[in-house]
Amino acid sequence: MLSKKEIKDIQSLSLKKQRDETGLFIAEGPKIVGEMVQHFPEQIERIYGLASWAAAVLLTQKLKTTIVTEAELQRISQLQSPNMVVAVLKQFERKEPNAFSWAIYLDAIQDPGNLGTIIRIADWFGVQAIVCGPGCADVYNPKVVQSTMASIGRVNFFYDDNGGWLLKQTLPIIAATLGGRLLSKYNKMEKGILLIGNESKGLSKELIAMASHQITIDKRGQAESLNAAVATGIILSHLVP
Amino acid sequence: MLSKKEIKDIQSLSLKKQRDETGLFIAEGPKIVGEMVQHFPEQIERIYGLASWAAAVLLTQKLKTTIVTEAELQRISQLQSPNMVVAVLKQFERKEPNAFSWAIYLDAIQDPGNLGTIIRIADWFGVQAIVCGPGCADVYNPKVVQSTMASIGRVNFFYDDNGGWLLKQTLPIIAATLGGRLLSKYNKMEKGILLIGNESKGLSKELIAMASHQITIDKRGQAESLNAAVATGIILSHLVP
Repeated sequence: MLSKKEIKDIQSLSLKKQRDETGLFIAEGPKIVGEMVQHFPEQIERIYGLASWAAAVLLTQKLKTTIVTEAELQRISQLQSPNMVVAVLKQFERKEPNAFSWAIYLDAIQDPGNLGTIIRIADWFGVQAIVCGPGCADVYNPKVVQSTMASIGRVNFFYDDNGGWLLKQTLPIIAATLGGRLLSKYNKMEKGILLIGNESKGLSKELIAMASHQITIDKRGQAESLNAAVATGIILSHLVP
Repeated sequence: MLSKKEIKDIQSLSLKKQRDETGLFIAEGPKIVGEMVQHFPEQIERIYGLASWAAAVLLTQKLKTTIVTEAELQRISQLQSPNMVVAVLKQFERKEPNAFSWAIYLDAIQDPGNLGTIIRIADWFGVQAIVCGPGCADVYNPKVVQSTMASIGRVNFFYDDNGGWLLKQTLPIIAATLGGRLLSKYNKMEKGILLIGNESKGLSKELIAMASHQITIDKRGQAESLNAAVATGIILSHLVP
């Protein structure tokens, strides 16, 4: 049986402050927990799963596992409909990215779903680093974790809290804007840093001023803008060799 | 002051059954309500806004407006943090798409945010029709409406409830899959129907069997898959002239 303290400790990981202090985060559901166990077993702190979940998984996945009741799962889960298993994981080690061919710099991306989707996109296109400028959502927010799947362990992301990282870079800086040169005019680029702006305000003037290119996705219809994650995917698909 | 019946009628539009019966839907917040008033004034049934909202908007936007209190807004809003104004709108007239150069066919897209984002993508690339196969989210779900902005009025979408629509089509049918020919091998295509599959299961075998092309987005990294809306954007950006 889970102790009151254990339940409280797990619940508290829904808060960024608590995640920062403990260096832990949570992932829920058989799919992502299975991926974590498979790809990053060293990150597992503890797994809390229903007996029905534990019976269905391989022996290796039962390491560090506590069997919980439906009622206990309900209490420790962040989801409206708890999904069989909650894992507590150690946060990945992050360092300031230096050597890379492609990186993404995010300006105040606030929607956790967008941030998670962008991490998956980076992992698909082999982008080695995501740098989050001031105002971005926390990468260990449970909603971000749910939408990244195992990509969260494969892409290095770094929080540039004082906004000085970009100033030190020497690669081409490509700003995604609504008034730039058309994406179709560009060929593949060996290296670059793609700047993606906030969901409603776009990129700040300061960041646009630092860019060597302003790129706009060719528009054939009438929508005012594209979702930030969708724009990231389209531009990387076109530019990354 | 709003009557109890009026409050209940507005609240009930959170349910698909009620939206289907009345032919109405709701949109919330100054941005989307402003866009609806500007582009589709004939769809407005009634607007419920705070006095502070009404004071800030143009005269034309005050037509059919009822001033409500914060407490009333709280009661009729679907949002956790109500945002100044709720509009009740007439649903757009939809007809089975026949003449078009590009369409998107969705196989059980269940996440309202994905559906809304795909509608915006269609509007950006000038895709004239979205056909929703069995199992798709309702386009008038408030979360879909919030993520489409005014694109919801510009893209014709049609519910193919019995799944027979595709059989009648003569244009190239392009399935987005994980084991097809690489997108980079394709040039622009004048016309086509893009098939996009369910978020976790992908496209059904039956739909893949109907496709003239299976396309896979070139992968340079390790992610297992891309988000359905992101994949839609990348493929359309590459193929639509």
